[in-house]
Amino acid sequence: MVSTSNGNGVNGGQNGVKLNGKRHAGEGLDRPHPQTSFIESTIDPQSFYGKMRKLYSEKVLMTQLKQLKKQGSYDAFDLKWHPSYDLARLHKGHFSPWGFPPTLFWDSDVGKWIEAVCYFLNSPDGANCAHKSVFDASVQELINKIEKAQLPDGYLNIYFMVVDPEGRYQNFRDMHEMYNAGHLLEAALAHHHYSGSRQFLDIMLRNVECWMRDIGPNEGQIHAYPGHPELELAMLRLFDRTKDPRHFDFAKYLITERGKKRDDLGGDSFFVYERKKRNDPHHVMEFALTLYHDLSYNQSHAPLSEQDSIVGHSVRALYLTTAAADLGGEGLTYAKRMWDDAVDNKMYVVGGFGSEPRFEGFHKCPHWLPDSFGLGYLETCAAIAAMMTAERLLSHQLDGKVRDVMELALLNAVLGGGSLNGEQFAYANTLATIGDENATRKDWFTVCCCPPNLSRTLGLLGGYTWSSRIDYDNQVINLDIYLFVSAKKNIALPDGSIAEVQMITEMPWTGKTTLSVNAPADWSWGVRVPTPEYAANIEIDTPTLPDVPGYVSVRLDASATVSITFDLPTRLIANHPLTTQDTLTVSRGPIVYTAESYDNSDLESKYKHFQGLGIKSSSSFQETPLEIEGIPMVGLSTAPGDVWLLEEAYKNQPYRAVSDKRPARTWTRLEGQKLTFVPWFARANRGGAGHVRTSFLRADEA
Amino acid sequence: MVSTSNGNGVNGGQNGVKLNGKRHAGEGLDRPHPQTSFIESTIDPQSFYGKMRKLYSEKVLMTQLKQLKKQGSYDAFDLKWHPSYDLARLHKGHFSPWGFPPTLFWDSDVGKWIEAVCYFLNSPDGANCAHKSVFDASVQELINKIEKAQLPDGYLNIYFMVVDPEGRYQNFRDMHEMYNAGHLLEAALAHHHYSGSRQFLDIMLRNVECWMRDIGPNEGQIHAYPGHPELELAMLRLFDRTKDPRHFDFAKYLITERGKKRDDLGGDSFFVYERKKRNDPHHVMEFALTLYHDLSYNQSHAPLSEQDSIVGHSVRALYLTTAAADLGGEGLTYAKRMWDDAVDNKMYVVGGFGSEPRFEGFHKCPHWLPDSFGLGYLETCAAIAAMMTAERLLSHQLDGKVRDVMELALLNAVLGGGSLNGEQFAYANTLATIGDENATRKDWFTVCCCPPNLSRTLGLLGGYTWSSRIDYDNQVINLDIYLFVSAKKNIALPDGSIAEVQMITEMPWTGKTTLSVNAPADWSWGVRVPTPEYAANIEIDTPTLPDVPGYVSVRLDASATVSITFDLPTRLIANHPLTTQDTLTVSRGPIVYTAESYDNSDLESKYKHFQGLGIKSSSSFQETPLEIEGIPMVGLSTAPGDVWLLEEAYKNQPYRAVSDKRPARTWTRLEGQKLTFVPWFARANRGGAGHVRTSFLRADEA
Repeated sequence: MVSTSNGNGVNGGQNGVKLNGKRHAGEGLDRPHPQTSFIESTIDPQSFYGKMRKLYSEKVLMTQLKQLKKQGSYDAFDLKWHPSYDLARLHKGHFSPWGFPPTLFWDSDVGKWIEAVCYFLNSPDGANCAHKSVFDASVQELINKIEKAQLPDGYLNIYFMVVDPEGRYQNFRDMHEMYNAGHLLEAALAHHHYSGSRQFLDIMLRNVECWMRDIGPNEGQIHAYPGHPELELAMLRLFDRTKDPRHFDFAKYLITERGKKRDDLGGDSFFVYERKKRNDPHHVMEFALTLYHDLSYNQSHAPLSEQDSIVGHSVRALYLTTAAADLGGEGLTYAKRMWDDAVDNKMYVVGGFGSEPRFEGFHKCPHWLPDSFGLGYLETCAAIAAMMTAERLLSHQLDGKVRDVMELALLNAVLGGGSLNGEQFAYANTLATIGDENATRKDWFTVCCCPPNLSRTLGLLGGYTWSSRIDYDNQVINLDIYLFVSAKKNIALPDGSIAEVQMITEMPWTGKTTLSVNAPADWSWGVRVPTPEYAANIEIDTPTLPDVPGYVSVRLDASATVSITFDLPTRLIANHPLTTQDTLTVSRGPIVYTAESYDNSDLESKYKHFQGLGIKSSSSFQETPLEIEGIPMVGLSTAPGDVWLLEEAYKNQPYRAVSDKRPARTWTRLEGQKLTFVPWFARANRGGAGHVRTSFLRADEA
Repeated sequence: MVSTSNGNGVNGGQNGVKLNGKRHAGEGLDRPHPQTSFIESTIDPQSFYGKMRKLYSEKVLMTQLKQLKKQGSYDAFDLKWHPSYDLARLHKGHFSPWGFPPTLFWDSDVGKWIEAVCYFLNSPDGANCAHKSVFDASVQELINKIEKAQLPDGYLNIYFMVVDPEGRYQNFRDMHEMYNAGHLLEAALAHHHYSGSRQFLDIMLRNVECWMRDIGPNEGQIHAYPGHPELELAMLRLFDRTKDPRHFDFAKYLITERGKKRDDLGGDSFFVYERKKRNDPHHVMEFALTLYHDLSYNQSHAPLSEQDSIVGHSVRALYLTTAAADLGGEGLTYAKRMWDDAVDNKMYVVGGFGSEPRFEGFHKCPHWLPDSFGLGYLETCAAIAAMMTAERLLSHQLDGKVRDVMELALLNAVLGGGSLNGEQFAYANTLATIGDENATRKDWFTVCCCPPNLSRTLGLLGGYTWSSRIDYDNQVINLDIYLFVSAKKNIALPDGSIAEVQMITEMPWTGKTTLSVNAPADWSWGVRVPTPEYAANIEIDTPTLPDVPGYVSVRLDASATVSITFDLPTRLIANHPLTTQDTLTVSRGPIVYTAESYDNSDLESKYKHFQGLGIKSSSSFQETPLEIEGIPMVGLSTAPGDVWLLEEAYKNQPYRAVSDKRPARTWTRLEGQKLTFVPWFARANRGGAGHVRTSFLRADEA
């Protein structure tokens, strides 16, 4: 029998009814969520990831608390009028899809911040957080506000309780009612897990009862699902806590109902039925036809089983994919299909997603990933959502490629969303600037989904690091390593004793990792060790067994130490050929590099945003020490003179005939010049305009 | 003294007051417009261009008449309610920028069709048009409707006379009032020129009086200008007919006022002032902020003198540039600056413009010209507008590069807008399909600006062919050749005699042209002959003098014959490097080629839309005869086995590390396979899905 170490025992103990076994073949939740399993891990505060986490617990969470207070969302559950609602009032009766105020999302912003705080304070090292008393008090104050705000029937939503009470349940497509509820529910689960108090969880259980009463497949219920998926995955996590089959069924309904046409909706799917019923004014309909009424924007254009490519709003798509993966069964089939399309055809080299700024989404065309015009979108939340999906996929089936992408997203597209002084954030991220757009991070955003999403991701990082399952029959502790993080993990054994594993690593800068395990003598270990795609000359000082691609297995006695070493050569990465962009990107290990104006002021000012510059496939790079805001990193630079200019780039010659005698490209060496690169996630942290270029023209001959 | 042969004498003679000389240094209109000078030219009906013109006069104009009647625009000047106006009525008081009905443009659609008919019937060969009686009757019927519709104060506009009378003069930014008037005025000028009747021209002169009374810089006037430029260039053409300085001044006001901030508008420019005065509902403002309120969409974001790049809606931008070029002086400076930016940085290889489908416009980024994803916009009207600008620039100063682009646009992006059976049209054009979007042409469009714009362009083709000026002092007839067209041109000399020039050419398929001139014995000729960028081994059997780049001069006696021959090698065209697209496009002379599924069904069905296929810089091409809808052309194909596959294109490997040992590209020869190419303008004329690819990956080694 294989069971779960669900890491739920530290402060828990007030859980609901246990479910007797899985409900359906292939479905269910015997895979611990990182949002609970993280508490088994202690991340070394002196390590790279430890320092990043310290940045978030010590600085970022406080920055965000101040911003939430300044913005108004912190006090919004007082249900008083806020000046920013004036905008909303103008719209009543004249709904326009872009006419709703950003206050529509305030519940979720507060929710994600509470969730993040609870993860940090619930971590084994959480007591070290300097702001614990402030955070505890703020969280309690917010919960009290939320409790007071809740309607007798369990409904909770700032916008529809203050601004537009008649609008409740009128527009599930756009108005984020269930999205907000999902984030509050995740916050409540984190708070219950952290504090042991049922106050917030009980509020949200009442809210969930409200949803389950009003929404669903049965007669008399509204056959809705969320325009922005989120409640789905929160419900599955709630089910993991309560084992209440109604919670599982509601999640399953929300996921699998999506995009289905129903006879009792006049043959339409829900959002079409709902729109017709609303009878939106024509001008909304016309505009919306090009965006909101394109149901692929919210992935409701077809039932999940009929969707063959990942489309629409990136965060919606990847939240949905996460929930579907967690659901298992046909959901997992869908999730794998969407994931493969996202990764193989629609992913930027930094593990970022979304190349269509117009709707923050996946472009309909595979390989439409322009990387040289400052125009990719790469929303921070989308990269976080990709980590979420990856983790759920790995929980079902280990896969080195999925792991590699999760690590790639974390170390590049996710971490790049925050400044290293803890004060600024990126919503959209850019691989190359063309003007100043998205060159530097901002203090805050009117729609501020990304910053607290970053915090909660760093908060539960231990949950993304590894996953363990206990094989009782054979007395084997199975450990799947996802990330190379200096951390300890305690795994509770059935007899109450604790097995320990410690990973000490110099990653992501040096491929040197030591893994020590320690369990009672009658136990052994089955550890699955990543062999990342970027690693060269991997050496493991213990016999290994083949495993899934990207992994090897080692069998270890109760106590053992394994050394894993590999080289991290600097590599030049070519885009997929169908992008038609023949550029090279510098990377080293899981880190993607960028050239920034700060280090290359002469070259950048002469060749604005490094346009027309190239590097060769044969180039070698020098490693240089680099420290930004106290975080040591590895910098890179080309050899002097190994920077190449395509002079045609500066000619007013839109098109040029080429032949075997007139080559398409002729490169001029820029004597004595070199390009210096820094990790892309660390860009725009040292002042300056933040002009960057990540992909350089390939300067090979011919 | 250099004066003008303005070609105005055939049916004219009822012009208004003559202006005594030019009004301002560097300004004025001593350069004949092609819309009048075309009547000097007779295009050989058996030649390529003659056959294209015959297609339009015999088939396309009739197709369009039927469509205008079917759509409702033909009868719209009856000022009766039309069902499609119901949409508009819903909007009254709730204006949304995308909420207005397409009926808003109906005046202009009818106007352009009348204009086109008049050009064809006014051509020396016009009497041959089989539909002359139908067209004459229809034009007269339309003019009678328009006359009856006009308000006593001269105002004319279907939308604001039927649908929203209170809306007149409330939104010059979006509602096309002056745009419509401009097209009707151009139609009236063409009709007057053709028929000698003043009926339509007098209607439009009353309309012009209405505009000049109500709009202008003076106190008591509305300080507006058209959201979509058009009236500007029509007014300059009117001035050319009337020489009424008020007409010139009004055109100059409309052009130069654009984007200027005025104290008497509260320090705003007009569209900002107007919006504030309208007090648009918030939801409109918010959406519009991203598009319509971005004043660069309509080129009013700054005074023309401060605009340094061409931005916004492509047709608006290029109509404005045309008018500014025609104005001369500071307008010409502006036009040259915009033209250079458009051509050098924002032009597709087929002479198409507009790479931003979202607003049918120029992308803000130079070299953002993705050509492999079926997503360029390349609106047919934008290419026509580029021809219009080019002709005005050439009228000021001959320039081989401007000429080359005018010819490129005509033979590719313009002609490609119509099917060769005369029944279908393209609004947006695509260089490569990815699905079926824009793969085939459509019968008609809800917004049908492009089809009649094509017709009028073909109608006045003789005006684009060449330009002549008479040097009285030296008795020299100066002739600038713009296009290689088999045509005769009669040039009236001051003594009433006629000088003749005849061009016989096999262009655009063979570089063989004979030019014969014949004038009274005491005259001589100064002919400027293009030396196109695409031509090789140019031979002219007469001594030539150097001239501006892209031209040579020949001095000829009164009667002489010159032979001009050059080779038209098939060339492979590389994009500007800053597009970062390393592709090759097949072209031959001024014709750009494409591979279509019709000729390459095996390759296209195997490698969907030819994805992952490449050609080499060293490839040679075989010429093959081709005839589509009775029009002979040159087809091209690669040698068998000279098609290359990049196998990586079919691997699920989003990024790949490359080095000097692992080349970025490895090409596999597709043994025995060849690619067949047809002129891009002739694509999608023989059935099939119309899947095309114009730019192929460059398959050179390394």
